[in-house]
Amino acid sequence: MAARKIIIDTDPGIDDTMAIFFALSSPELDVVGLTTIFGNVHTDVATANALRLLEIAGRTDIPVAKGTDQPLAGPFGGPVPYVHGEDGQGNLHLPPPNTQAVAEPAAQFIAEQVMTFPGEITLVPIGPLTNIALALRLEPRIADNVREVVLMGGNALAPGNATPAAEANIHNDPEAADVVFGAGWEVTMVGLDVTHKIVMRPDHLAAYSTASHPLAQHIARMLPCYRNFYADYHDLTGIFTHDPSAMAYLIDPTLFKTAQWPVRVETQGVGRGKTWPAVNDKRLLPPWQNRPPLNICVDVDVERTIRLILSRLG
Amino acid sequence: MAARKIIIDTDPGIDDTMAIFFALSSPELDVVGLTTIFGNVHTDVATANALRLLEIAGRTDIPVAKGTDQPLAGPFGGPVPYVHGEDGQGNLHLPPPNTQAVAEPAAQFIAEQVMTFPGEITLVPIGPLTNIALALRLEPRIADNVREVVLMGGNALAPGNATPAAEANIHNDPEAADVVFGAGWEVTMVGLDVTHKIVMRPDHLAAYSTASHPLAQHIARMLPCYRNFYADYHDLTGIFTHDPSAMAYLIDPTLFKTAQWPVRVETQGVGRGKTWPAVNDKRLLPPWQNRPPLNICVDVDVERTIRLILSRLG
Repeated sequence: MAARKIIIDTDPGIDDTMAIFFALSSPELDVVGLTTIFGNVHTDVATANALRLLEIAGRTDIPVAKGTDQPLAGPFGGPVPYVHGEDGQGNLHLPPPNTQAVAEPAAQFIAEQVMTFPGEITLVPIGPLTNIALALRLEPRIADNVREVVLMGGNALAPGNATPAAEANIHNDPEAADVVFGAGWEVTMVGLDVTHKIVMRPDHLAAYSTASHPLAQHIARMLPCYRNFYADYHDLTGIFTHDPSAMAYLIDPTLFKTAQWPVRVETQGVGRGKTWPAVNDKRLLPPWQNRPPLNICVDVDVERTIRLILSRLG
Repeated sequence: MAARKIIIDTDPGIDDTMAIFFALSSPELDVVGLTTIFGNVHTDVATANALRLLEIAGRTDIPVAKGTDQPLAGPFGGPVPYVHGEDGQGNLHLPPPNTQAVAEPAAQFIAEQVMTFPGEITLVPIGPLTNIALALRLEPRIADNVREVVLMGGNALAPGNATPAAEANIHNDPEAADVVFGAGWEVTMVGLDVTHKIVMRPDHLAAYSTASHPLAQHIARMLPCYRNFYADYHDLTGIFTHDPSAMAYLIDPTLFKTAQWPVRVETQGVGRGKTWPAVNDKRLLPPWQNRPPLNICVDVDVERTIRLILSRLG
């Protein structure tokens, strides 16, 4: 079977980095581009990080396209240095990249790639969905020409993390998420319902520091910052495994249990950014009518998923 | 031990009727009044039903105080005849009551009772919280003079029932609920997190029709309407046991597992009426800061709860 062509839309980010390196180390996946977005860091920093990570991986053949630096509506709420470090790399302060992003902005790159390879490209957004919504506005035909969209974000039945209501990626651009969830393409949501179950404990994480592979070594150097956040904010010994879980779904969807529900995204009030599924509703209220069902990960085989992620350390 | 003085604020309603009759049949509870509210029916109908139910129970010594017919903000969304019947009594179309409500409106009655028996009155709202919020505005000292508030309503971690987001009682007046949840008194929330687990099946419900007690017989006559709703809308054989569960909590709180979280109520957007707990948050965001923790029922011993409810059929 040919490797699946994916574009990772990302705001690296420690778990983004884990996800990107996991994808690059997986023969099932063919990373045809990274597109960058604000979220864990500003878009400028995300772009520099994406380029630098591809240099570390020896994959400067993969293009990086820089995305927008603001959500569809309203200003970006700002990065989260207490989670991912000031540099999004656990305060490793990497040297600047020697390579450059392509000339096309991310939305245009996404649209062009999808239309060049109709039915072949899977979009894998692991940050806010602004670039994906912009790509839909730029070239609506991508909805019919993408293979599918598998994203890390949202929370169907679980509480939020950015707020009590909302998951961070969706909270950073709820309007964009509502566009993406209503576009009629196949969307799989790998959200907090599963990622808050996938806790990599210290004994799991030790595999990164003991592996000799340079990508594993880079992850090991970033992890203390990330682990401190989970210890301080969540009383958690270990980490929630957000972004790598989207890649795990791509490689082996049987790891996950899914449900099919239409989703609206809250854009107002204290719940702004909450993804609202209509759960088993026989009579949909108007906001959910004519909305396509999303494929929502609601449960996961935790140990198998972690084993899959760790198996690709080279 | 003396019976606990309670005021039931209610919109009867089939499960309200079950709850009222359950309370009247329980020596642990001393029902000092019923106050009425819109919700399952309009307030006029709720008031007539409350009076009629006390006549059926031979308890016309208990005063009924009529409540407001509109939420704090915006108009009442309307009754739900497909759930409780046009008359709120499963379309039994009872004769009008021979008794009358007291002169005081519900909010005044609540305030007076609480201040007359400081530390003794437990408020048990099993409908929208408008009267309770109005009573707080009328006489703020009730917050310090009530024994506690035990309400049926809300959903902490479970999906809604009026909408995918919101439970019906809170959805009918989110602004009032946000006032009540922020008042600083002890509030226990018996919501969908537990009531959607307490399914009375046909074999449970048969106890009402086989019991000779007139209150049980009245419930048995109402139930076909209620069961049809659950069959049609929820594919459920049986009923969710909403309002009686609040009385079960009062009689035996050990039936329930609780968590203590501050709660804000969504007043905007598609999530209007959703109760948002800050779940295990070490750093509260501004909307949840300085909000008292509610006591939220998150799990329940289903069979013991149903046995308790059915044990009081007389």
